[in-house]
Amino acid sequence: MNILDLDTVRFSADGAALEIPDQTLLPGRVEILRLTKQEDIHEAIRSLRVRGAPAIGVAAAIGAALAAREIQAADFESFWAQFKEKTAYLATARPTAVNLFWALGRMERCAEENRRLPLPALKTRLAAEAEAIRQEDIAISRSIGQIGLGLIHEGCGILTHCNAGTLATAKYGTATAPMYAAHEAGLRFRVYCDETRPLLQGARLTAFELHSAGIDTTLLCDNMASSLMQKGLIDMVFVGCDRVARNGDAANKIGTSAVAILARHYGIPFYVCAPSSTIDMSLASGAEIPIEERAAEEVTEMWYNERMAPEGVGVYNPAFDVTPHELITGIITEHGLCTGDYEAAFRAQGID
Amino acid sequence: MNILDLDTVRFSADGAALEIPDQTLLPGRVEILRLTKQEDIHEAIRSLRVRGAPAIGVAAAIGAALAAREIQAADFESFWAQFKEKTAYLATARPTAVNLFWALGRMERCAEENRRLPLPALKTRLAAEAEAIRQEDIAISRSIGQIGLGLIHEGCGILTHCNAGTLATAKYGTATAPMYAAHEAGLRFRVYCDETRPLLQGARLTAFELHSAGIDTTLLCDNMASSLMQKGLIDMVFVGCDRVARNGDAANKIGTSAVAILARHYGIPFYVCAPSSTIDMSLASGAEIPIEERAAEEVTEMWYNERMAPEGVGVYNPAFDVTPHELITGIITEHGLCTGDYEAAFRAQGID
Repeated sequence: MNILDLDTVRFSADGAALEIPDQTLLPGRVEILRLTKQEDIHEAIRSLRVRGAPAIGVAAAIGAALAAREIQAADFESFWAQFKEKTAYLATARPTAVNLFWALGRMERCAEENRRLPLPALKTRLAAEAEAIRQEDIAISRSIGQIGLGLIHEGCGILTHCNAGTLATAKYGTATAPMYAAHEAGLRFRVYCDETRPLLQGARLTAFELHSAGIDTTLLCDNMASSLMQKGLIDMVFVGCDRVARNGDAANKIGTSAVAILARHYGIPFYVCAPSSTIDMSLASGAEIPIEERAAEEVTEMWYNERMAPEGVGVYNPAFDVTPHELITGIITEHGLCTGDYEAAFRAQGID
Repeated sequence: MNILDLDTVRFSADGAALEIPDQTLLPGRVEILRLTKQEDIHEAIRSLRVRGAPAIGVAAAIGAALAAREIQAADFESFWAQFKEKTAYLATARPTAVNLFWALGRMERCAEENRRLPLPALKTRLAAEAEAIRQEDIAISRSIGQIGLGLIHEGCGILTHCNAGTLATAKYGTATAPMYAAHEAGLRFRVYCDETRPLLQGARLTAFELHSAGIDTTLLCDNMASSLMQKGLIDMVFVGCDRVARNGDAANKIGTSAVAILARHYGIPFYVCAPSSTIDMSLASGAEIPIEERAAEEVTEMWYNERMAPEGVGVYNPAFDVTPHELITGIITEHGLCTGDYEAAFRAQGID
């Protein structure tokens, strides 16, 4: 199976459900979940059955459209009160990825702008909006891919961290989009995937999807990147992001800042691939980005089904860290490559 | 149980076996192995049932003494030929830690120097030499502990990588020796342990031993160290080493060079704790240190007993990397703290 034949997040054919492959079962099993209840969609986001900032946004948009379908209301005011309650609930699923709030906000604006439509038509309009968000997400990835393609050369080695792949978006990914574009263009290159502890998205998802697409893929533990760089095997780094502040500070999977520091030390360019929906112009710097802390058991209990750490020991388990903009060579949005003064570059691209 | 009540590596009471806790079963189970055959001792080193450069040295010395016990020979020449064959075999167990070769060399020199003894007395002398190596290893750790103690202050945060602990030596460890000394001295401080993929020596061994000794211990995944440093929680780094070249370049567990680069980036002192037996004055730089590559399955198959990476994907799995001397604030040997020109400092300590 080529992973690009699989939709990461979509409406079911009858429009009544959200369909996702359960990413917690990958790479061992590809099982498509059909979710209709808000509680199940919330749980799927919370438990990382669907994850990756853009994919979370699309899932939330479809979730909001499905919520709208079920609302019984006599007028828009009654619909609106119920709809806002449901979007507010979905917004609590995870705190860091801004796309979740961005997509729900866009669905709310769509509802308000179409308040004069009869309710059945409004519900249809909201489903169309969610599908538009999904299609736009694919187009955004394609665009990031074309821009990033210009940075890849024949025979190069690329490092990536976590999964900012097709499985993190509607299709093609953000950090992986340039790789899929280069592969389509017939370039040969090597991709090195950090396994990305504690949940191993690099091993389970990125290595899986790139390998399935026929790309030369090598897996490494997170602590091996310095050794690869020391040997001259890495020519560039592409990572995704969960939220970017207007100064360019980028929150992404825990460990990303370490990769950026290593890249700077070894003189390797470090690129963040960021759909404009992940750029939060309301935040002056990365210090304002809320960082999710997850359960200690993610660290202590995943080895051989036995506890691999002693009982009672403390555990530090933040899901993300912030890479300061000074360490980022460039931020690739769907509109182009931003460098230097990121706020000015974002504004020049119409992001605000 | 306080881990310091356990001997990492010792002769059995009857002197006929090597006794070690099987470290592959920790922290879940403390099971003492009693090994008499050379093949079993070789396998125990190769499979990391006993690991850590100084502990490997002691295990090899005891292994050589046990080998001597079994040799049937009419004269020294016949004994010597058989003894050399057995030490050569033990030397193939692992390639990077120089203590293995150092300890076997010392056992060979002891045999040669006592060639005029009757064989039974020679065998007793070799057993005494192995026990002396073990006792000296404890004294060396105590000395490193006292020197490192001077660097630790009340309330500080210390990061360590892998296990250079009591489980990596005859007792007290190298990187952990200053921590045990500080704990004995009544200082309060926090230790953060990188879990150290792929084999999780930090989670399974270091967090286990420090926590068992009553030290405030927090576990993190390897990729979280940058986040901790960014928050100002780390005041210093102590690591062990497997081999140090005469210019101070230090081979240690994979990922150590990354920690050193992060420490430099955040302005945090980075210390290597190195018994003089790990310093290899015959090597001009770290580029000459052989780096062991281990099996791909260590990376791909340790999660939920299921493969966590796709079949067919490449795997990069070096067991060690080299930290260049420029990134090392100081190297602590049993004789003192070396800084600046490491070769001169080593020679001034009588290491050659």
